[in-house]
Amino acid sequence: MSGEPRIILLAHGSSDQRWCQTFEKLATPTLESVEGSRIAYMELAEPSLETVIGEGTREGIRHFTVVPLFLAAGRHLRKDVPAMIEELQAEHNVTITLASPIGENPELGSAIRDVVIHELEGHKQPA
Amino acid sequence: MSGEPRIILLAHGSSDQRWCQTFEKLATPTLESVEGSRIAYMELAEPSLETVIGEGTREGIRHFTVVPLFLAAGRHLRKDVPAMIEELQAEHNVTITLASPIGENPELGSAIRDVVIHELEGHKQPA
Repeated sequence: MSGEPRIILLAHGSSDQRWCQTFEKLATPTLESVEGSRIAYMELAEPSLETVIGEGTREGIRHFTVVPLFLAAGRHLRKDVPAMIEELQAEHNVTITLASPIGENPELGSAIRDVVIHELEGHKQPA
Repeated sequence: MSGEPRIILLAHGSSDQRWCQTFEKLATPTLESVEGSRIAYMELAEPSLETVIGEGTREGIRHFTVVPLFLAAGRHLRKDVPAMIEELQAEHNVTITLASPIGENPELGSAIRDVVIHELEGHKQPA
């Protein structure tokens, strides 16, 4: 157990509460299945990545894995988040691994196909 | 068959080719399973939504469903894309339905959970 990193699902964040609610819903199956996992926001919403790393550190967690709730890597994931992680590692003396954005995993492509197929079935039903 | 809308998977678009490649991979299971489906970009990459609607119209398609490859609805999906769609409908005399962003579907939350579980299994293996 102690060897397992704490999983942090990292979303971009927005000042629009509806936007954050969508991400909280998206995170729910993970938060319910993976013990200790958390959601955090890069900017514009709380809890921030800093808040969640700080809380984990106070609980004695030394290793974190950040899973970006992004479909693809743009500037944020190539530059801003790695810089943020480097700073937080030094500040809290912990190891933080940045995983690939969720969209780079084949599970996501299959889920999108299923969504589209359901969408088409919904379109057929009234006919 | 004729009653089925043409599915267009709409991604934001980027001048970074790696970003677009991730979306093309994400779209592949859908493009392979759903006849006639296409990917299009809102901006910064080709094919644009306008290009894909124009092509469909020339093939005789009268009804399109745009499925946003976005995890949540922000300004783009609440304002820019609906305005774009309104214009394209008038210009091409077709019906274009805007579906919910993929992230609002429960399939995505389950896929994210599966990604995280695989991530943790990968972490355990060397131990």
